[in-house]
Amino acid sequence: MANNTFKEIAEVLLKAKSVLVYPHINADGDAAGSAAALCHALRKMGKTSYVLIEDRLPDNLRFMDKGYFTFDPSVIERPDVSVCVDCGDPGRFPGRKKKFLSAETTVCVDHHQTTEKFCDYSMVDPAAAATGELVFALIKEMGAELDVETGEAIFTALTTDTGNFRYSNTTKNCFLIMAQLCDLGVDINKVSVEIYENERPQKLMINTRALSTLEIFGGGKGAIAFLTLEDMKETGAEPFETEGIIQNIRSLSGVEYAAFVKEKEPGVVRVSLRAKRRGNVAAIAQELGGGGHVKAAGCTLNMTAEEAVNLIKAKINEAIEAI
Amino acid sequence: MANNTFKEIAEVLLKAKSVLVYPHINADGDAAGSAAALCHALRKMGKTSYVLIEDRLPDNLRFMDKGYFTFDPSVIERPDVSVCVDCGDPGRFPGRKKKFLSAETTVCVDHHQTTEKFCDYSMVDPAAAATGELVFALIKEMGAELDVETGEAIFTALTTDTGNFRYSNTTKNCFLIMAQLCDLGVDINKVSVEIYENERPQKLMINTRALSTLEIFGGGKGAIAFLTLEDMKETGAEPFETEGIIQNIRSLSGVEYAAFVKEKEPGVVRVSLRAKRRGNVAAIAQELGGGGHVKAAGCTLNMTAEEAVNLIKAKINEAIEAI
Repeated sequence: MANNTFKEIAEVLLKAKSVLVYPHINADGDAAGSAAALCHALRKMGKTSYVLIEDRLPDNLRFMDKGYFTFDPSVIERPDVSVCVDCGDPGRFPGRKKKFLSAETTVCVDHHQTTEKFCDYSMVDPAAAATGELVFALIKEMGAELDVETGEAIFTALTTDTGNFRYSNTTKNCFLIMAQLCDLGVDINKVSVEIYENERPQKLMINTRALSTLEIFGGGKGAIAFLTLEDMKETGAEPFETEGIIQNIRSLSGVEYAAFVKEKEPGVVRVSLRAKRRGNVAAIAQELGGGGHVKAAGCTLNMTAEEAVNLIKAKINEAIEAI
Repeated sequence: MANNTFKEIAEVLLKAKSVLVYPHINADGDAAGSAAALCHALRKMGKTSYVLIEDRLPDNLRFMDKGYFTFDPSVIERPDVSVCVDCGDPGRFPGRKKKFLSAETTVCVDHHQTTEKFCDYSMVDPAAAATGELVFALIKEMGAELDVETGEAIFTALTTDTGNFRYSNTTKNCFLIMAQLCDLGVDINKVSVEIYENERPQKLMINTRALSTLEIFGGGKGAIAFLTLEDMKETGAEPFETEGIIQNIRSLSGVEYAAFVKEKEPGVVRVSLRAKRRGNVAAIAQELGGGGHVKAAGCTLNMTAEEAVNLIKAKINEAIEAI
């Protein structure tokens, strides 16, 4: 897909009087941070701008909402420009798709691999660690005044999408941007506390419960844990609050294959699989009717959690023997 | 304390034929990374150099040891220069103090506040996020060739001492150095996996066990958890493997006061206290015969874990009412 330049997109935004910004559903730090930063910059330049959402912003990202985020599509009746950030497919903002496309001009700023172009203007760069990286470049191109609020939102986008500058998508440019954000007066610790020290007790409880079932096998190379529907009910945890568990399991020393089994409904479980250095979990997932990548894959099985744990252990043991 | 310049210290090292490097006991990522980077640079410049240690390097830092670290004080019989890194007091390398002082010239490179000068040459900068920051400047001043190995060790120093660039000591200079390390070809993800995905199962188990005792009180503003000697014995965890637990407790949304009680011996417990935004835990610790900082303090109590939990809850409840 041919990209437009930052200059071309900046010109579109500079000509507009009103701009609605669209992060994807289940907004993460990159989606929400990119949206907040862009909305703030547009307002600084005298535009009418809001971030239109269709589901609740996670508690730990609310600190960025200085009156930008709204559920109300009529907040701008006929916006000149729609900009979607961190999503390259209208299926990522299903409830807002019609409104998005109703704008005179549509723009996409994203770092995901996308299959088809669906906006009038696009800046899609899969080499960017976060969409926030692209939004930062765009804001600078627009000539908007950069301030600490811009910095906090861009920092949020970068730190969350790179796992605190630990994942392989982390680039030199991330660090060069971070140095600039320090100059804007961003209080790294304050923002990190907002993002990372805002965990619901229910999340800690469900994580603790899952990890208390941890079983290490295959000579220390395999590790598995599980959760039942009863665990979810008793702790009051939300489904998305189990997301970090597989990472905890993978982090164990010596573990090459990590698995996490979660009962979705009676007799149906979702299995998450991770490999560390040498393993290939895509092969295991495919064999069981699922899919994914070499290091991160998954499948859904029609059986109890206990049966799934036994099946997955057997499959991982086979894979370990083949290493 | 008057510092020497990097240039003066570089000159001392450039003149030397043999240099022994001393990290502090219980070496962390900054101490071990600074030591490895300096030793590597000195060898690159044709010097005989080793890192002398007196206790075992943590498993997750061993990837940096390319034949640098040794327990053998006679590895260099009479070194021209001793350099201690990340420690500003010989009490931090008690078993090696005599050997350290026996060198012709002694050098200290550190970022801790120190009370007195004890080396011939010193570079002590408490504004540095990590000693690795200072060692990196020193290596550049020496004119040593920088390579990926230097980069990995300096990255380790920076990421561990800043909590992945999240703590308040994180500076613009950290990010500018990180950008330079990327140019050296450091694989951020590979090194992060070494450092952070090398957790002993025993550590995960003791953390899980502690957090399963979590109690939230004081209208959600207080949180406490505890461990007994039996827990330690049953999981086989090492004493230092409980260090991250208080941080987990503090990370909970709404929690302003976090406490962790750990039985040290029958009838003796150690209490760790943390405040988030507004609280002052130093006051509570002092009242109970301990001490510390406003946001991080502790005390030792002669009672059972259960009695301590009740006492601390009462004290925190008083403090919450006073907020």
